[in-house]
Amino acid sequence: MSKGLTAGVIGLGSMGMGVAQSLLRAGFDVAGCDPRPEVVAALAAQGGRATTTPAEAAEGATAVFSVVLNGAQTETVLFGPGGCAEAMAPGAVFVSMATLSPDLARDMAARLAPVDYLDAPISGGAARAAEGKLSVMASGAPAVFDRIGGELAAVSENLFRLGDQPGQGSSFKAVNQLLAGVHIAAASEAMAFAAAQGLDLAEVYRVITASAGNSWMFADRMKRVLDNDYRPRSSTDIFVKDLGIVLEVARTRKLPPPISAQAMQMFLMTSASGMGADDDSSVARFYARLFGVTDVIRKEGDDQ
Amino acid sequence: MSKGLTAGVIGLGSMGMGVAQSLLRAGFDVAGCDPRPEVVAALAAQGGRATTTPAEAAEGATAVFSVVLNGAQTETVLFGPGGCAEAMAPGAVFVSMATLSPDLARDMAARLAPVDYLDAPISGGAARAAEGKLSVMASGAPAVFDRIGGELAAVSENLFRLGDQPGQGSSFKAVNQLLAGVHIAAASEAMAFAAAQGLDLAEVYRVITASAGNSWMFADRMKRVLDNDYRPRSSTDIFVKDLGIVLEVARTRKLPPPISAQAMQMFLMTSASGMGADDDSSVARFYARLFGVTDVIRKEGDDQ
Repeated sequence: MSKGLTAGVIGLGSMGMGVAQSLLRAGFDVAGCDPRPEVVAALAAQGGRATTTPAEAAEGATAVFSVVLNGAQTETVLFGPGGCAEAMAPGAVFVSMATLSPDLARDMAARLAPVDYLDAPISGGAARAAEGKLSVMASGAPAVFDRIGGELAAVSENLFRLGDQPGQGSSFKAVNQLLAGVHIAAASEAMAFAAAQGLDLAEVYRVITASAGNSWMFADRMKRVLDNDYRPRSSTDIFVKDLGIVLEVARTRKLPPPISAQAMQMFLMTSASGMGADDDSSVARFYARLFGVTDVIRKEGDDQ
Repeated sequence: MSKGLTAGVIGLGSMGMGVAQSLLRAGFDVAGCDPRPEVVAALAAQGGRATTTPAEAAEGATAVFSVVLNGAQTETVLFGPGGCAEAMAPGAVFVSMATLSPDLARDMAARLAPVDYLDAPISGGAARAAEGKLSVMASGAPAVFDRIGGELAAVSENLFRLGDQPGQGSSFKAVNQLLAGVHIAAASEAMAFAAAQGLDLAEVYRVITASAGNSWMFADRMKRVLDNDYRPRSSTDIFVKDLGIVLEVARTRKLPPPISAQAMQMFLMTSASGMGADDDSSVARFYARLFGVTDVIRKEGDDQ
């Protein structure tokens, strides 16, 4: 049953489609937009409304969810030709879910005023997006959280309210991505190190996930390495982007984060080796080449 | 009630004392040895037997637990003057619990034969040692595990049987320590990065421990940073040693582990800054100096 409220969703990739589906399920009218006509048609087939520009999707919406890849795309969605800013009126809220730099979030929020901007990067992956169970690291004016509380509840399981200024949510997300990126690289280094010592990797997985060396990323990503399954749930190049944001924030503030900087190099080496579009657990495949254990850690079809 | 079986415990620091207490509680006669007379006396007061050399503690014991700091101490305990090797007869088992290199474990096992050597590095900290709930990453002949099953059950909650050759247990431990060391350094870098962006660290802790950036070490060690509590549960210099083993194994096998190598530098910088004997979470205090946030991350009494 429709609530008579319209939400816009810009970007209908695996995450954005999940956001749109969750809003539909909660009774919102959903207008969606994406450069790929086939995903827009897929949304329409599920009861959403197809539109051709961000402005059209934003027209009359109480909340517009931007679920695109990065800061540059977000800026285009907002301020490019046919962008949301043309169509949004005060009272509406632009919810930016991409991982982007805190400075850019502050800048876009200032440019969009008096229309409200919620700085709301997400994590959780496609499956949780489809279930309306994303984690959202959000900051913005308290009144904004209240005004679109129903929309936010429809898409999220954990809604962290992290401050009343845009930028704070993105700062928290950058801290999380610093750790997540380093942990993927460290997990990959550890698995290749184990393989080079002749250890059984399934046994390594069992021992480490029950020990003090465990991380959320080790448990999640190294399962894929055991399964030789490198289909991209989240690609190597996404972390090249996200660690890039971490290092940009650090450089801007004149901070030296040596571990993150080193982890970035490992993602870049993995991408440069032709695995940029593969799952980010492919960092382990790059380490396998470096450590001479491609007989153990490899994707079917890889050269050994 | 005594089982009529004697176990020796060499090294009565916080971990060794916990091992000895767990064996006493399980009904073993325990002979203990340590260079510090006061801790030997403390064991005697709890029903153990005081001895003055490793050989004396090992005399007649079915199992001798060596709970010392490192490989060099283990070698002295075994083969130095008054060492265990002088007193142990075939049928007895030397259980080496220190974190040391797999090559050294193999070497000592070969020198000790025909007396059995169990390669059994531990983790879990002093509290779990006292409760008989250590995690043990063990390898050695299957018959050895059976012969001292009661002793091992008395001291451990998780007994990982990781192979039938000494060295394999230490290889698993090295993999764990690689991850643990990198995660402490990464957690410290992330907390200082958050502080430099003006984020509230208690909120960072709450968000990260519920997110994909979490690690066992982040949750454990960063709690100490929030509490400004740097009393050494495990010191910075212990990780200088343990990452040293990781890098030695890697160098010996001609493997380049860049993230571990960078993490090692952070522990060395922390130690060189005078915090080697402080808790290993003090890496965050070193980062605080590097990032200019000693007003947020500091030990009482530190210069700001």
